[in-house]
Amino acid sequence: MRRFTLAVVLALSLIVLLPAAQQPGMQSNSLYGFRDDEARQQRDWENKFRAIPSPENMRNAMQRLSARPHHVGSPYDKDNAEWLLAQFKSWGLDAHIENFDVLMPTPKERAVEMIEPTRFALKLQEPAVAGDPTSNQQAEQLPTYNAYSIDGDVTAPLVFVNYGIPADYDTLDRLGISVKGAIVIAKYGESWRGIKPKVAAEHGAVGCLIYSDPRDDGYFMGDVFPKGAWRPPDGVQRGSVMDMPTYPGDPLTPDVGAVPGAKRLDLKDVKTLTKIPVLPISYADAAPLLTALTGPMAPMAWRGALPMPYHIGPGPTKVHLKVASNWDTKRLYDVIVRIPGSTYPDEWIVRGNHHDGWVNGAQDPISGLVPEMEELRAYSELLKQGWKPKRTIIYAAWDGEEEGLLGSTEWAETHADELRQKAVVYINSDTNSRGYLGTSGSHSLEHFFNSVAKDITDPEKNISVWQRARMAAISRAQSQERRDETRSRPDLRIEALGSGSDYTVFLDHLGVASANLGYGGEAGGGIYHSIYDDFYWYTHFDDPDFVYGKALAQTTGTAVMRLADADLLPFDFSDQADTVRRYARELEALVKTQQDDVKERDRELQEGLFNAVSDPKHPMLPPKRDPMPPFLNFAPLNNGVEALSRAAERYHTASAAVQQSGLSRVTFAETNKLLMETERKLLLQQGLQNRPWFRHQLYAPGFYTGYGVKTIPAVREAIEQKDYAEAEAAIARVGRVLQDEAAVINQAAESLERAK
Amino acid sequence: MRRFTLAVVLALSLIVLLPAAQQPGMQSNSLYGFRDDEARQQRDWENKFRAIPSPENMRNAMQRLSARPHHVGSPYDKDNAEWLLAQFKSWGLDAHIENFDVLMPTPKERAVEMIEPTRFALKLQEPAVAGDPTSNQQAEQLPTYNAYSIDGDVTAPLVFVNYGIPADYDTLDRLGISVKGAIVIAKYGESWRGIKPKVAAEHGAVGCLIYSDPRDDGYFMGDVFPKGAWRPPDGVQRGSVMDMPTYPGDPLTPDVGAVPGAKRLDLKDVKTLTKIPVLPISYADAAPLLTALTGPMAPMAWRGALPMPYHIGPGPTKVHLKVASNWDTKRLYDVIVRIPGSTYPDEWIVRGNHHDGWVNGAQDPISGLVPEMEELRAYSELLKQGWKPKRTIIYAAWDGEEEGLLGSTEWAETHADELRQKAVVYINSDTNSRGYLGTSGSHSLEHFFNSVAKDITDPEKNISVWQRARMAAISRAQSQERRDETRSRPDLRIEALGSGSDYTVFLDHLGVASANLGYGGEAGGGIYHSIYDDFYWYTHFDDPDFVYGKALAQTTGTAVMRLADADLLPFDFSDQADTVRRYARELEALVKTQQDDVKERDRELQEGLFNAVSDPKHPMLPPKRDPMPPFLNFAPLNNGVEALSRAAERYHTASAAVQQSGLSRVTFAETNKLLMETERKLLLQQGLQNRPWFRHQLYAPGFYTGYGVKTIPAVREAIEQKDYAEAEAAIARVGRVLQDEAAVINQAAESLERAK
Repeated sequence: MRRFTLAVVLALSLIVLLPAAQQPGMQSNSLYGFRDDEARQQRDWENKFRAIPSPENMRNAMQRLSARPHHVGSPYDKDNAEWLLAQFKSWGLDAHIENFDVLMPTPKERAVEMIEPTRFALKLQEPAVAGDPTSNQQAEQLPTYNAYSIDGDVTAPLVFVNYGIPADYDTLDRLGISVKGAIVIAKYGESWRGIKPKVAAEHGAVGCLIYSDPRDDGYFMGDVFPKGAWRPPDGVQRGSVMDMPTYPGDPLTPDVGAVPGAKRLDLKDVKTLTKIPVLPISYADAAPLLTALTGPMAPMAWRGALPMPYHIGPGPTKVHLKVASNWDTKRLYDVIVRIPGSTYPDEWIVRGNHHDGWVNGAQDPISGLVPEMEELRAYSELLKQGWKPKRTIIYAAWDGEEEGLLGSTEWAETHADELRQKAVVYINSDTNSRGYLGTSGSHSLEHFFNSVAKDITDPEKNISVWQRARMAAISRAQSQERRDETRSRPDLRIEALGSGSDYTVFLDHLGVASANLGYGGEAGGGIYHSIYDDFYWYTHFDDPDFVYGKALAQTTGTAVMRLADADLLPFDFSDQADTVRRYARELEALVKTQQDDVKERDRELQEGLFNAVSDPKHPMLPPKRDPMPPFLNFAPLNNGVEALSRAAERYHTASAAVQQSGLSRVTFAETNKLLMETERKLLLQQGLQNRPWFRHQLYAPGFYTGYGVKTIPAVREAIEQKDYAEAEAAIARVGRVLQDEAAVINQAAESLERAK
Repeated sequence: MRRFTLAVVLALSLIVLLPAAQQPGMQSNSLYGFRDDEARQQRDWENKFRAIPSPENMRNAMQRLSARPHHVGSPYDKDNAEWLLAQFKSWGLDAHIENFDVLMPTPKERAVEMIEPTRFALKLQEPAVAGDPTSNQQAEQLPTYNAYSIDGDVTAPLVFVNYGIPADYDTLDRLGISVKGAIVIAKYGESWRGIKPKVAAEHGAVGCLIYSDPRDDGYFMGDVFPKGAWRPPDGVQRGSVMDMPTYPGDPLTPDVGAVPGAKRLDLKDVKTLTKIPVLPISYADAAPLLTALTGPMAPMAWRGALPMPYHIGPGPTKVHLKVASNWDTKRLYDVIVRIPGSTYPDEWIVRGNHHDGWVNGAQDPISGLVPEMEELRAYSELLKQGWKPKRTIIYAAWDGEEEGLLGSTEWAETHADELRQKAVVYINSDTNSRGYLGTSGSHSLEHFFNSVAKDITDPEKNISVWQRARMAAISRAQSQERRDETRSRPDLRIEALGSGSDYTVFLDHLGVASANLGYGGEAGGGIYHSIYDDFYWYTHFDDPDFVYGKALAQTTGTAVMRLADADLLPFDFSDQADTVRRYARELEALVKTQQDDVKERDRELQEGLFNAVSDPKHPMLPPKRDPMPPFLNFAPLNNGVEALSRAAERYHTASAAVQQSGLSRVTFAETNKLLMETERKLLLQQGLQNRPWFRHQLYAPGFYTGYGVKTIPAVREAIEQKDYAEAEAAIARVGRVLQDEAAVINQAAESLERAK
């Protein structure tokens, strides 16, 4: 009796904790967007699909693709593209290579020397590691450098600027330290690397060194390579410093494809090169320079894990920095696969991952590319078995991502008109690792990607990857409120997309609903953009059995198949409306916080606080008195949010009814066309202030963060930069965009209602 | 006209910001506790007093007192005591030395060697530094050791335990790591050092090493000695590891003075020695041991600034640790000065600072002792000029503080009966530095110490030290709420006293209202309890001009004079009631937080969160399921708080009326007697659980923090240790204590009301 009671209680609590739809391994028969009879068929195809991706194949492909350095312009980059093409063709797929010719500088001269107080010539070289068979391919390796740094030859005192983001310069101001005429040394991290020379130049610096501090990317994090996964003392992070938040892609051909005959800018007119020379260095190279610095101690939060006191300078460290590049044009090899749609051939599901690396690039990007290959191989098997995707599927292995999203941007700019007409969704991956599914993207797809994640099993835990991500979200939540929300909200929130990979042109420039998927969070590592990102490292420290490679293929492939086959496209706007409402509230709170901060600072200035707490032996100047941020008229934004919410609810009700009725209608062509329009409507042709290439009004990479997203960027960045007139104008613009978005969603709802 | 308007606005805003009484340098004629005619006289004496303390004298005295090592049992400790006595006598003061004979072990053998995976014999020795003239007195220096470690000779694997506090062992449990049979290595910090071996032994460790990590006390904080103020690689923090939270003072004579004929425990029966051998080591000595460790990476928050990955072990590091002491009795030399009171000779104002150091001890304790000397010299001048303090003033230069508050505890235990009868207040200092006035103590004195601080001018800023401390409090506040409270509350909050200096026996054992004063916060440093805490270091890096030495003499001396001369003792209970109410609310919140945490953890266990987020390659076990903390009956405590608040308000009103009437009565003897009783009433004869020596029911050093205070300790520690039955019993006890406190305050109020 007691035992029985206990069992009942247990069963009841399970029901409460795990609604049926969330239980791993359980699949209901219905599938959103499919007629009930087709849903079972679709499930069958998807199940067949998910059985196919082979870790062994991925391992072999990674070994082949990362066997030699394969950066843009290298022989092996072309070789890889041709091998990929051959593979795809051997599976019976329609594949071709598209070429673009783009500006890509490579180093001619690199030198950094400390000339005072002692002389020290930096190594600027990553040594080969015994036992790592590809680390010694020095003849083919790109040296350590930052692409699109201008040429320069400067000698100047060194100043340590923490991560080199704008807030760090506010601190320097209060310490009375100027970087005018100085070479700054900044830590990698906190912003995309291209932001560091940009902000340094704005403050008058003449040169910039960027190093990986062992606190963030070295022994503080764990054993260093080859003993462990983390960055060794001489490891250097290469990388582009092009001003990508202005526009990505070939610097010479903004807005258009870099094809023969395209209008090309003169190099001198290019706006996305740095203003000062930049080089990345290792922490072994940085240590003597930093150790020699005197001047004030850096604030606690600035200090890293080098065994020394972190001083800011200037003095006495003086550095000579020389950078000169070959400003050559290099050829890109984008490999494109096309699986024609049987029913809606002019609706495209696009999927991509780049194939170029900075050196051998096993993790970045091959760990994301090999699942993509397995997806294609699996499709080819299904096609042979009779699977007929209704929509056209386009797969791309992009070239030139590392330098500035070159391959994807030039391809999409070339095919812009067709993409605007036909592209339904773009799904990206880049690197892949062990751990949790990370999903970022358009919030009209939030519900859809939640539903996919519930059907994928985590290889380590035998629960759904959705459930595992949910547990991680609860575990990481900083407040009970967030934990409770995560538990009660049907969908896990997905992140907004900033930049840093090939979705950028699709989402931000063309308004194609996009997502980026990848696993990670368990295997750390510090080989990013170094010669040690290779097959040896990956198979020792990342996802050695490629079980998460398989999971990624299953996840993205399932998503692609479901998008390609659904009669009614699985867009939903409830999550979008909820998310935009949060953003709007954040913006109002941001202004309120700014006002409160100015008010508090005024009081502190008036009561003499800054003088009272300034140590005469380590003085800090009072901060500047800021103008009071005005109250802004948020009504247009809030009206837009309300309109969007209402339309979303209407669409949700209408589509639920259609789904309930089993999709009895023959076609949803009109609705689907309108759904494809919904992301386009979030663009404004005029783009963002000072960067018209970026048109999306909900998402953009931050002008001063680079990778990091700014949501409702026109408004948020205007507020952050204290341009309140512009902020208010932007609120009105975004309000209209949301009204337009609501209108198209209402039309879509109406098209469904009419059919009922 | 415009100029005029601006001036008016400015004047108005000044009035708003700085009420007249808070303006530095401004003194009203009235003085709380004094008749109006005597207030002016008192102000004159105080002003004369504050002009006397001489930085030059303090400098000379520090140089003399720190010229050689002067730990308990050393020739120079006795020599210093005799020199102090001679000085005091030469100023015409009544002074004598009181001796006690106490257990004080000194090292006979010390050895630490890593025997696996490689051999490394630790240096355990601080080298002399060129240019620092006293650092080479090796023959007289106490070696680096932890006093009251038991003897032991153990060989065992090493485990890194972070700071070695109880929460760290919870983390180790989740990592599946036991310290049973291991030697632990803990960082200095976060708890008093004696807690580390105590908690390690509770978890089955057989030995304990404690080291100063450069993150907390070394190059991460700033340039190391002799270039800068911070701990050099071979610097070691000596210190006592006696279980002081059980009882301080001579381990052989708890509760009674260590005088000839006192009942002494057998060494084997002493409860305050460690259970396992302990030694402190430098970070240069710790580095090879820690670098060799493998096992899981330590959690982020555990990692320090050594240039290596922080692993926890166990394995492969194996260590041999040997400690053996001479368990000798040493003689203490307390120097006692007595200035008899003219009117109330049986009401004592007691003031102390210790004179013994671990080595040369310039900062600790001489920087606090030399202001005390200048106070006495100034009094001797005032006495010659006709000043007649109404109350008796007792000054003490304690011996044996470093080993366990030996000199103050034995003296106060010896004179316990007299102190219970006569002691009004005990004012302590220990070290002194550059920066802000720090005040801790009994909250019945909070208002009084605020009023004193308003009369002392900060030597760096020319504002009152009260105003400067207030600005610092605003600057450090973590929320707008705290900033606003600091601005609007008439008194700055003072901290509660835990332990760590000589006030302990007065406050916690005898119930004498106490305070500890000192300046600090600007000059950092890492020479604590090392051979580098000497005259050279202090005059280069701390308060080189002794201007804060002068400020401390002015502050404590003004307080002593005002307490000695007031007709009505300046106790007030409004701040006490307000503070106790906060503590009571914290306790209720603590239980609520525990309940919420258990509830949340239950959910997480049930939903499988811990398994879902455990990386199979770095597993973390789920935490244990805790019982649900019950709701407790806080009514007795809240009733006590209400009674106290009501009594405090009544007393405040009555004393304000008396003050308003100009203290027209002749004597306040009855009231003062009752006021002296108020702190005694906060004791319970039975003391705290398992440590009856500690009797105060509002303040105690934490059983598992050591220095850190636990307020309403009987309740708080029972809740923290999840002994809820004991917590509820303690709530009832403390409720009665507060009722008793309220009763005596009501009597005091009544005695004033009767006189009106």
